[in-house]
Amino acid sequence: MSEKQYVTYGQSCGCGEGCGCGATGASLAITGCRFSLGVMSDRYIDIILSSLAKTNTGKVWKMTDKLSTVYRGKQVHVEDALQACFTHAYTPGVHMTMEATFSKGCPGDVDADVFMAEDDVPLNAEGMKDIHFPVACKIALYPLGTGDYMQHIAHVVNHAIDLGIYEKSSHYCTILKGDVHQLFDYFHYVNSYCGENLRHYVFEITLSVNSPTAD
Amino acid sequence: MSEKQYVTYGQSCGCGEGCGCGATGASLAITGCRFSLGVMSDRYIDIILSSLAKTNTGKVWKMTDKLSTVYRGKQVHVEDALQACFTHAYTPGVHMTMEATFSKGCPGDVDADVFMAEDDVPLNAEGMKDIHFPVACKIALYPLGTGDYMQHIAHVVNHAIDLGIYEKSSHYCTILKGDVHQLFDYFHYVNSYCGENLRHYVFEITLSVNSPTAD
Repeated sequence: MSEKQYVTYGQSCGCGEGCGCGATGASLAITGCRFSLGVMSDRYIDIILSSLAKTNTGKVWKMTDKLSTVYRGKQVHVEDALQACFTHAYTPGVHMTMEATFSKGCPGDVDADVFMAEDDVPLNAEGMKDIHFPVACKIALYPLGTGDYMQHIAHVVNHAIDLGIYEKSSHYCTILKGDVHQLFDYFHYVNSYCGENLRHYVFEITLSVNSPTAD
Repeated sequence: MSEKQYVTYGQSCGCGEGCGCGATGASLAITGCRFSLGVMSDRYIDIILSSLAKTNTGKVWKMTDKLSTVYRGKQVHVEDALQACFTHAYTPGVHMTMEATFSKGCPGDVDADVFMAEDDVPLNAEGMKDIHFPVACKIALYPLGTGDYMQHIAHVVNHAIDLGIYEKSSHYCTILKGDVHQLFDYFHYVNSYCGENLRHYVFEITLSVNSPTAD
């Protein structure tokens, strides 16, 4: 019987905080997103596969497993591909959700599984610029490894208030609503802010369209 | 025009870290869970409503909005109600996911919206003890406000390895698989460990059954 292979996060770090940074982390500024679509329809396979076929992922590294899909690359391309996947899956009258986890700076990350040499021209923006529909949304930001995390959360929530897309604060999340472009523009703001101000963050979003639940 | 009402997380704290603890946080040991079911079927409304009807939520505070449902209370009852909701929604041949966010210790939380005076006898355990089915799972743990967070993540991942439910580590999450009871027993372990060792944590889980995607 072979010996168990344990994970060793946080054990080989030289920063004094036991966080693993530097020793095994990625040196590249990789933005990642792990996401999944929930399509409440018997046609869910067709809807998802059709959306994936319309999404140009030429500038992101991607991987799909049983639970979700991961895009990794430059922030602009990860966001662009995610928005395209969601937008092209939108089907009038069909309730659909997307759960997406943006992440950057994880000490356990590696300089692999990524395309970083691309230019900054998004591949999908032109094809979806005229597609508009209302979206309900919840967000939660988790700045890791820092004591002042609540201040960063307040900063991004208050920016949503400034933009007019804030609906309310609720237990464990903030509720937003707006046009699909307004929301993705906001996600771009949050990822940019966090990339500049935090060493490691996780930004969770849930999008929902055509929900039968009343407001 | 009224003045904008901004949020003030992290601004009224006396702990020196700007985290908001003490000033506005909850003093009770409230475990919360925000979750949603994704049922990939035209019958999704019936399946979800039927499951909710079979779940005894008498010992948790609950609220449902357009995006998710929240349970709050003692850890044992929140876990018990969540497992019941998932178990009773399980439908042979229907692909379904559950996204759930456990959280405890948020400095922005309040001593409200909760039942904490209940005893420790779970209301749903007996009715689901003989219901077994295989589940694919991903987890991600976010200990907030601490520099040694990767060590805590490693601890809970290594416990999954010890239990034999660990499949692999992947970008931004850990993949598990097992019987529904094995996984919920593990979630209980993680919530107990985090409740004892962390001031504030968020534990994200995704469960998936009957996926058409090959292993």
